[in-house]
Amino acid sequence: MKIAILGGTGDQGFGLALRLAKKYEIIIGSRKREKAEESAENIKKILSSKGIPYRDVVGMENRDASQEGDIVILSVPYQHTLSTIKDLKEELKGKIVVSIGVPLAGVIGDKPTRVVLPPQGSVAQMVQEYLKDSKVVSAFQNVSAKVLECIDEPVDCDILVCGDDEESKRKVIEVVNSIEGCRGIDCGGLEMSRYVEQITPLLIGLNIKYKLKGSGIRITGLRR
Amino acid sequence: MKIAILGGTGDQGFGLALRLAKKYEIIIGSRKREKAEESAENIKKILSSKGIPYRDVVGMENRDASQEGDIVILSVPYQHTLSTIKDLKEELKGKIVVSIGVPLAGVIGDKPTRVVLPPQGSVAQMVQEYLKDSKVVSAFQNVSAKVLECIDEPVDCDILVCGDDEESKRKVIEVVNSIEGCRGIDCGGLEMSRYVEQITPLLIGLNIKYKLKGSGIRITGLRR
Repeated sequence: MKIAILGGTGDQGFGLALRLAKKYEIIIGSRKREKAEESAENIKKILSSKGIPYRDVVGMENRDASQEGDIVILSVPYQHTLSTIKDLKEELKGKIVVSIGVPLAGVIGDKPTRVVLPPQGSVAQMVQEYLKDSKVVSAFQNVSAKVLECIDEPVDCDILVCGDDEESKRKVIEVVNSIEGCRGIDCGGLEMSRYVEQITPLLIGLNIKYKLKGSGIRITGLRR
Repeated sequence: MKIAILGGTGDQGFGLALRLAKKYEIIIGSRKREKAEESAENIKKILSSKGIPYRDVVGMENRDASQEGDIVILSVPYQHTLSTIKDLKEELKGKIVVSIGVPLAGVIGDKPTRVVLPPQGSVAQMVQEYLKDSKVVSAFQNVSAKVLECIDEPVDCDILVCGDDEESKRKVIEVVNSIEGCRGIDCGGLEMSRYVEQITPLLIGLNIKYKLKGSGIRITGLRR
């Protein structure tokens, strides 16, 4: 299975690519092909230097990446999410699109410990409104890029997964669980993503306050 | 130190009283004194039957409880929060008031997996707006009443504590840490409470979906 990561040259996308390349073919997407290819080479170099086996990592323009990927992870800044996907409706038709965005208030020049919610209530629902023919699933909002990048250590974070299409959600949870230390938890429909997205400003606040590499969360009490 | 729990006859307040009675003198507050006294007797009976030593537990009308408590925990339903505190401004002046409320949408007949935020952004900030002369700290929103009630088992949940007065926050964290298995985490100012409160609908969703006694959260990555 091929996973495309649009905006995969950014921190969060790069970290996810590093972690997912062990099990999946990765396509790094970017507005510029050269940048995407450079990032793909970089990922291969890091994994090789650590002696970590990987499938394949290639770089493409966002449009080609969207076409090629079986699952497409949207790793673009909040303010560029709509402009990116509006142009890719055809390519993303019928596909699983993973929304990992958080509506941080940095977008209006305010603090990253605050959110400015989109009118749809969450980034994930905003994406679904504009990609009516895609199956949007949200995940990975609460795991820090810095933690993902430390591939020598398992990730100590649950990944809360929301979506309205059960089969797509199941597939995304499988992808999540391929990352050592991540546990995918089905948290219900896509509308629940607003609560998941709003955990992130809290974690960012803790990271700043206690100078952490990246705090995360675990859900307790899951087994009776 | 005396801890008053207004609305302490309700599930969450009752559970907190059970847990806190080991270390603190507890005053159960209620609109009706008889109900409060009955609840206090009940708590003492449960603790005695389990052989758990406790300080003292008494029942009082909310007004007297507010007067007597050094720390006052507000354990009243969302929709009765303002009507309760508007009448107790004088008694609560200068005191630490702990907001544990969550703005669940049940208040308008919608699902408990949704919130209806007050105009202030969070229940805690709403309380602070109406109690200008009290030191409002928020805590205990993410721990389930059913988990608190099982006093034979430690609680497996972090308690995220928010507040603008550092000294009051420190004292509340000390109270939190007296409960076995609870870890109080300073999450910053009172405005951060909105994100903490909105974790609860997510946990309620998990409780319903997976038929749990009560899910909770842990923050990971706190030590580098």
